[in-house]
Amino acid sequence: MRLLEERILKDGKVRPGGILKVDGFLNHQMDVHLFMQLADQWHEAFAADNVNKILTIEASGIGLACIAGLVFDCPVVFAKKTKTKNIDGSLYKTTVESFTHGNIYDVIVSRDYLLPTDRVLLIDDFLANGAALDGLCDLVEQSGATCVGAGIAVEKSFQPGGQRLRARGLRIESLARIKAMHDDGTLEFDD
Amino acid sequence: MRLLEERILKDGKVRPGGILKVDGFLNHQMDVHLFMQLADQWHEAFAADNVNKILTIEASGIGLACIAGLVFDCPVVFAKKTKTKNIDGSLYKTTVESFTHGNIYDVIVSRDYLLPTDRVLLIDDFLANGAALDGLCDLVEQSGATCVGAGIAVEKSFQPGGQRLRARGLRIESLARIKAMHDDGTLEFDD
Repeated sequence: MRLLEERILKDGKVRPGGILKVDGFLNHQMDVHLFMQLADQWHEAFAADNVNKILTIEASGIGLACIAGLVFDCPVVFAKKTKTKNIDGSLYKTTVESFTHGNIYDVIVSRDYLLPTDRVLLIDDFLANGAALDGLCDLVEQSGATCVGAGIAVEKSFQPGGQRLRARGLRIESLARIKAMHDDGTLEFDD
Repeated sequence: MRLLEERILKDGKVRPGGILKVDGFLNHQMDVHLFMQLADQWHEAFAADNVNKILTIEASGIGLACIAGLVFDCPVVFAKKTKTKNIDGSLYKTTVESFTHGNIYDVIVSRDYLLPTDRVLLIDDFLANGAALDGLCDLVEQSGATCVGAGIAVEKSFQPGGQRLRARGLRIESLARIKAMHDDGTLEFDD
């Protein structure tokens, strides 16, 4: 079993309705030494891809992305949730529909920090329906940069995001893949 | 001149109305190697304080706080902006009034992640009016934990937050202190 899967079994909690609580080590309290080990796993997977920039989305992706930035030795950019109107054209902007929170929001990245020469690795804590990852892919595409793939901590593979994005050609390296969560509080990982 | 001050002179931009843009290295694109050097400076300042937890607030404090967590060898908690009603008492909650954005919002921390035995270092990217830092102090106080102080990247010392919070007894270590910003795009640091 993989490192993050072991940690989920030890400290994660399954709640009714397909909710996995990992806020003791991943997305509220953060175990930064675990993050370093996860970043090493992404680095191993993307070692040949000449990543020179990491892109994530606020808020809970930022910690993972920054530690990955140390390992990949490159700057980290986080897309910002905003109500800003893009009047002066200085921003790339896209729309993300959150199924989890039932809302739609804009995210932006300054044109200064995504360049056509960039080779971008996307980092996020969760992949379920894939809405956030869709948005990040769209921002990279607008900039003309190359997206080498996505490093995800926890993928809920019983939800459609991973399959849809892989079918579109996105390489996704998820460090824990959950195929089922049960109302008795247990869960199953993909093989 | 100190490291972060040199970087602000090199890559920061002063905008009319007392706005300092540092989004090329601090709060949109993040230079994580710089962050490591800043974290080392905080660690030097708070080496004797037995810090066992770092607390920050989403979103732009998270990157700095996570890298500091590696240096201090402790977990990092970020307070979340939320509209959640605290019905079940499982949260510490406070209210932050942002002068910059002209709004008021609630921030929460789970009671599981701030304990009376904790010795907490607060980390944030900016200190101006001190509203965010007030909120973090309040959360720590509610929990019964000890606040050893605050590590701030950029303090605008011409705004009242730093003076007010120091007068209340909070130890604040700011790595760049700006005492004046001028409409011609120049700025001055405190000695």
